[in-house]
Amino acid sequence: MVHFDSDYMAGAHPEVMDALVRTNGEQTPGYGADSYTAEARELIRKATGCADAQVIFLVGGTQTNATIIDGILARHEGVLAAESGHIAVHEAGAIEASGHKVLTLPHYDGKVRAEDVERYIEEFYADATYPHMVAPGMLYISQPTEYGTIYSLRELRALSNACHRHDIPLYIDGARMSYALAAEGADFTLSDIARCADAFYIGGTKSGALFGEAVVITNNSLCRNLFPLVKQHGALLAKGRLLGIQFGALFRDGLYERIGRHAVELAIRVREGLRSEGYEIVIESPTNQQFLRLPNDLIDRLHAVATFDYWGPRGKEESIVRFVTSWETREEDVEALLAAVETK
Amino acid sequence: MVHFDSDYMAGAHPEVMDALVRTNGEQTPGYGADSYTAEARELIRKATGCADAQVIFLVGGTQTNATIIDGILARHEGVLAAESGHIAVHEAGAIEASGHKVLTLPHYDGKVRAEDVERYIEEFYADATYPHMVAPGMLYISQPTEYGTIYSLRELRALSNACHRHDIPLYIDGARMSYALAAEGADFTLSDIARCADAFYIGGTKSGALFGEAVVITNNSLCRNLFPLVKQHGALLAKGRLLGIQFGALFRDGLYERIGRHAVELAIRVREGLRSEGYEIVIESPTNQQFLRLPNDLIDRLHAVATFDYWGPRGKEESIVRFVTSWETREEDVEALLAAVETK
Amino acid sequence: MVHFDSDYMAGAHPEVMDALVRTNGEQTPGYGADSYTAEARELIRKATGCADAQVIFLVGGTQTNATIIDGILARHEGVLAAESGHIAVHEAGAIEASGHKVLTLPHYDGKVRAEDVERYIEEFYADATYPHMVAPGMLYISQPTEYGTIYSLRELRALSNACHRHDIPLYIDGARMSYALAAEGADFTLSDIARCADAFYIGGTKSGALFGEAVVITNNSLCRNLFPLVKQHGALLAKGRLLGIQFGALFRDGLYERIGRHAVELAIRVREGLRSEGYEIVIESPTNQQFLRLPNDLIDRLHAVATFDYWGPRGKEESIVRFVTSWETREEDVEALLAAVETK
Amino acid sequence: MVHFDSDYMAGAHPEVMDALVRTNGEQTPGYGADSYTAEARELIRKATGCADAQVIFLVGGTQTNATIIDGILARHEGVLAAESGHIAVHEAGAIEASGHKVLTLPHYDGKVRAEDVERYIEEFYADATYPHMVAPGMLYISQPTEYGTIYSLRELRALSNACHRHDIPLYIDGARMSYALAAEGADFTLSDIARCADAFYIGGTKSGALFGEAVVITNNSLCRNLFPLVKQHGALLAKGRLLGIQFGALFRDGLYERIGRHAVELAIRVREGLRSEGYEIVIESPTNQQFLRLPNDLIDRLHAVATFDYWGPRGKEESIVRFVTSWETREEDVEALLAAVETK
Repeated sequence: MVHFDSDYMAGAHPEVMDALVRTNGEQTPGYGADSYTAEARELIRKATGCADAQVIFLVGGTQTNATIIDGILARHEGVLAAESGHIAVHEAGAIEASGHKVLTLPHYDGKVRAEDVERYIEEFYADATYPHMVAPGMLYISQPTEYGTIYSLRELRALSNACHRHDIPLYIDGARMSYALAAEGADFTLSDIARCADAFYIGGTKSGALFGEAVVITNNSLCRNLFPLVKQHGALLAKGRLLGIQFGALFRDGLYERIGRHAVELAIRVREGLRSEGYEIVIESPTNQQFLRLPNDLIDRLHAVATFDYWGPRGKEESIVRFVTSWETREEDVEALLAAVETK
Repeated sequence: MVHFDSDYMAGAHPEVMDALVRTNGEQTPGYGADSYTAEARELIRKATGCADAQVIFLVGGTQTNATIIDGILARHEGVLAAESGHIAVHEAGAIEASGHKVLTLPHYDGKVRAEDVERYIEEFYADATYPHMVAPGMLYISQPTEYGTIYSLRELRALSNACHRHDIPLYIDGARMSYALAAEGADFTLSDIARCADAFYIGGTKSGALFGEAVVITNNSLCRNLFPLVKQHGALLAKGRLLGIQFGALFRDGLYERIGRHAVELAIRVREGLRSEGYEIVIESPTNQQFLRLPNDLIDRLHAVATFDYWGPRGKEESIVRFVTSWETREEDVEALLAAVETK
Repeated sequence: MVHFDSDYMAGAHPEVMDALVRTNGEQTPGYGADSYTAEARELIRKATGCADAQVIFLVGGTQTNATIIDGILARHEGVLAAESGHIAVHEAGAIEASGHKVLTLPHYDGKVRAEDVERYIEEFYADATYPHMVAPGMLYISQPTEYGTIYSLRELRALSNACHRHDIPLYIDGARMSYALAAEGADFTLSDIARCADAFYIGGTKSGALFGEAVVITNNSLCRNLFPLVKQHGALLAKGRLLGIQFGALFRDGLYERIGRHAVELAIRVREGLRSEGYEIVIESPTNQQFLRLPNDLIDRLHAVATFDYWGPRGKEESIVRFVTSWETREEDVEALLAAVETK
Repeated sequence: MVHFDSDYMAGAHPEVMDALVRTNGEQTPGYGADSYTAEARELIRKATGCADAQVIFLVGGTQTNATIIDGILARHEGVLAAESGHIAVHEAGAIEASGHKVLTLPHYDGKVRAEDVERYIEEFYADATYPHMVAPGMLYISQPTEYGTIYSLRELRALSNACHRHDIPLYIDGARMSYALAAEGADFTLSDIARCADAFYIGGTKSGALFGEAVVITNNSLCRNLFPLVKQHGALLAKGRLLGIQFGALFRDGLYERIGRHAVELAIRVREGLRSEGYEIVIESPTNQQFLRLPNDLIDRLHAVATFDYWGPRGKEESIVRFVTSWETREEDVEALLAAVETK
C-alpha cells in the first residue's frame, strides 16, 4: 500500500530524527533558551535575509496562526482572509476564540486578489457605519494555498503594497512553504517572502519535522510581547530545544529545500501521469498537492494499492480526490500508483 | 557539571526515544486516529482502572490546563486553586485568556484543605450578592504540588467529597504524577487518583517523554466535545501518534513508574545528604523536588559543579534553592553534588 | 424639518416617559428585584403565552445578542445567521469577542431559508473534517429583518422545524418586533413567535422605550445561569426597575402594538406615495423601514425638508435611500415629505 | 419606612429627570453624535480641567470597567487592584471574560498603598520566571473605595508616581466620585483626579442619574479606538443623548457637587448619631457609606422603620450593617432612623 493522503503521516525526515537522537541525552535550559534554538534562529534569519527579525518556534499551525494573529491585531480588529483560508475554515474557530472575526474575501483557486483587498478596505471606510463593524486589521494569506496554488512574486508584491497602502500588515501562513519554494514556476525566494510580509511562518510539521513552525516577524512594531503571549496561548514548549534542533537540521545544509523539491517533483509526476491518461486536473497546482477528477470505479480500484483523500462527488460517476506527496514519498510509490491507473 | 535545575532539561528517556525512532518511517492517519494512540489510550485506561474514561493526549501542561478547565466550566464559573497553584501563577493568564477567573485558596506547602474548599463554597452561597461574583465551578489541585508535597489518600478523598457534596468536579494536574506515585509514604495508586478525580492528567513532559500529557476524564458528563475544543485551543498535534507512541512506551511495561521511583530515590538522597550536613529542609518534600536553605557561600561553591534553581534570599547570608531529579539524573551526579557540599 | 432617519431618534413614547416620571421618587431594590420588573415579566409571559418562560430585561440589542448567544452556545459552537444579519455585520465583532464564530448563510432580502439551514448542517456533518470546523450550534434570525422584510408563520415554522430536526435552538432578534407584528400581511402573533423560537427578544429601544429589550427564553434547557452571565457581560442595569417600568407601560394596555401599527401605517403611506409617483421600491417591505431608489436631484431637494438615510449610489443619477417611521412620526410629517416629492 | 440600602434605589434627581422630560420629543442622531452629548463632553472637560481629554459616556459601572480596562491593557497584561476592589469581587468575572487577570494587592480599609504597588512590580520583574506570569499592565483604584474611604491628594499622587515610575497607567473607578469630592477632609478636586489618573470615570448611576458613567481619558496614548471597542463590549447606547442630557444636567450648574455634599452631610449625621449612642464605627468613612457594628436586637428593631444592608455577624450578639445616603435621603429620614436607635 502506498500513501498519498497527506504530508504529515510519517515521523520526521531521517536527518531531523538523527539530530534529535544525537542530542537526546544533553541537558539544556527549557523554553527555547538553549543554544540549539539560538542557532536555528540565526539560520532562519540568514535564510530569510532578515538579520533583525524576531524568530520564534511554535509547535503547530493552528496554534501559530491563533497566537500571531492575536498578537498583531488590536482588540477591535479582524483579519482578512480568503473564504477558503485555513483560519476561516479548518481551525475550529481558534481565531474567534481569541476574540477576532475572520473577514472573508472571494478566492480564486485559494488565492485572494490585491484589488479585492483594496476594495474591501476602501468600501469599509466609505461606509458611514464602519465604527459599528469589525475593522480589517491585517491580511492573512497562505503560500502555497490550501488548494496547492502559489502566489507569484508579482502577486505577493501587489498584496504587500495593497496592505501597506492601507496601513495593515501582511501575514503569510507557510505551513507548506517548502513546496511553494520548490513549486513549478516559483519566482520568489524566502527573502522575497520576508520582504513582502510583515510576519510569516515556515512550516516544519508538513516538511520533515516531527512538529514545529518557525515564525518570522520582520516588522518590529508587531508582537512586541510575544513570549508571554505564546505562553498564554498554551503554545510554549517546555523542551523548546526540540524545535531548535529540528529547524537546525532543516536549515543548516539545505534539507528544507531538498524536501520541497523532492515532493514537488513526485507530485508533478502524479499529475502528469494522470493527465496523460486523460483525467481532468481540477486545479492546476504546481506544488505537492494535486486535485483530480477521477471516475468512481477507478477510485475504487486505486484504493486497493493506495490511500488518498476523497474531496466529494462530481456528478454521479466521478469524484474529486487529492494526492499529496512529501519527503517520505518514493519514486516507486508514484510508479505503483500510476501503474494501477493504467491497468484497465 | 551536573544538573538539578528541572526535570525537563534532556530529551526523552531512551526507551521512549527508541519507540519514536522505530516507528518513524511508518505512515499513519493524523490527529490521534492511529493505532498507537488507540493502544496508549487502552494502556492508560488499564493503568487507571477506568475502562470507560475519555482519554486524550495533549502536548504541554499549560495547554492542557487551559483546554480542560475551559471544557469543564460554564461561562460564568471560575476555578478554585491554591494561591500557589500553577494555573494561578505560572501560566501567563492562560485560564483568564479563555474567560475564567482563578479563585484562590490559602495553601499549606502547596496544598489546599478540604475544609477551606467547603468554607469557600458555603460562604460564597451565603453571601446575598453571590450572583454578582464568580461562582466556584471546579477545584484544581496538583499532585504532587508545585512545592513537591503530596496529598495522602485520605486528603484526596476529603477533597473529592468536599467537591462532590457541593456538586463541583475535582481536576488534578499531574504534570509530575510519576513522582507523586513514587513518593515516600505515597499511599495511593493511579486508580485511587482516578476514583477521586473527575478529570486529571498524567504528565509525560517531566517524566521521560519529549512532550505530552495524557488527560483522563472519568466523569462522563464533562467535556463532551473535547476534540473541537482541543483544536480550537491550538492543542491538536497533527502527528498525533507521537503522543500515543510515547505514552505506549511509558505505560506498556511500567517505565513510567520506574522513572518516578528512580528520580525520587535520588532526590531523597540529596535531601538527606544535605540534612545530615546540618542544612535546613525548607519544605519536607517526598518527591523529586527538594527545597533547601543554604549559605550563600556554599551556593557559590556548588555552582562550580552543579546547576540548580535559585528561589530567593532568606536573610543576608542564606538563600532558598531547589534541586530537581529526573530519569536522567545518575547516582554519580548526586554523589558529585554531595561531595561538593562536604568539601569545606 | 421632518425626520425619517431611524426609529431611535427621540426619547420615549409619552406614556412610557410618564411611567418613569410617576415612579421616579420611589425607592426599590436594584438589579431587577423590584415589583415593577416582576409585573413586566408577567405581562411579557402573558403576551407571549409562555407562563414558564425565563424573562429578563437588558439595555440594548448588541448587548442582548452577545449575552444570549454566548449563554446558548457551547464553547466550540458558532451561530448560523444571514450574511446580512445584524450580528454578522453591525455589532463590531461582539459575538466573536465572546469567542464564537458567526457562520453565514445566503440571504434573500435579509431572510434565510430553512432549506439552506438544513443543507448547511447536513453538509457540515457529511464533511469528514467537521471536528476541525466550527459546529453550527444555533440559528439567529431577525424578525423583521435588517431590510424590513418579515418571515411568514409558515417560514418561521419551517425554520423552527429545520433547527429542531438537527437539534439546535432558534433565536429571534426582535429589535423591531412591534413592526413585524403590525406588518402588512403579518400572519403570526407573539405567541407564534414564542412557539417557534427557543429564545427571542422583544425590542423596546426602537419601539417607544428610552432603551430596553425583553428577552424571553422558552426552552428551559438554555441559559440556566443567566443572571451572572448578564452581569459578566456588563449588561446588568443597577436601577433595573427602569426596564420593568418601561415594559410595563408598553405591555399593560397594548401600547407596544399601537406603536407598531402607527409606524407601519405611516411607512406604507410613504412607500405608496413614492410608488404612485413612479419611483422604484427596492425591497418590498411591509414594516416601518422603506428602501427606495430615487433620482439624486430629488434626494437633494428632499433634504431641504427631511432627514433620512443614504444607502449608496445606484448608477450615476440615482441612489438608494431609507425612510423609517416610529411612534414619533406624525401624519403631517409624511404629508410634508410627500408634498416635497410631488413638487417638481 | 426610610431607606439606607444603597444609592441607586430611586430614579434620577428631579433636575436630571426634568432635563430628560424636556428634551424627550426632540429628534437627534443616535450613538452620542448629538449636541447634548457634545455639550456634556465639554462640561466634563471643563470640570476636570482637561481640554484635550477623550470623554465618552457609558451606561453602567461594570461595563465601563470591563471596556476601559480591556482598552488599556495589552493582551498579555493584567490589572492590579485591591483584593477588595469591585473588579476583583463584584463584577462576576467581567474582566476575566475579556481575557485579563485581576492581580490583587492587600487593602487597608479598601485602599492600596503606593509602596505595595511598587513592591509588586519590582518583585515581579525581579522574578526570573516573570515572562510566564501575568504582567501588571495598569493599576485600578476606586475613589471612594468600596468601604467608603478616600485617598488623600498625597496618596493619589504617590500612587500616580508609583505607576508612572514603572510605566503603567493609573485608572480610577469613580462610581461614587461625587461623595469623594464632598467627603469630610477631602483635599482634592476633579482636576487633581484628572492630573493623577491616566483614565477615570465619574459615576452618574449612584449620584443622581437614571444611569450613566462619564469616562475621561487624559493620557492620549490610551484607548485609541474606543468607539468600536465600546460597541464590541455591548456598551453603546442607541439613544446616546440620554447620557449627554443627564451629565449636562449634573455638570451645568454644580448639581453633581450638591448631590455629593447633601448625601455626605446626612451620612455623617447617621454616623455621629450612632457613635454618640456608643456604637462602634467599623470603618471611619468620610463619605456616604457608613459601616457600623450594632447589637442584633437593635438591628431587628431598626428594621421596623428602615431598610439597610446586612454585612455579616460579628460574634453572637452583634453584626455589621451598612447605611448609605444619596440625593433622595431627607433630613427627616435620618431623624427617623436615629430616633429609632435612641428608643430603648
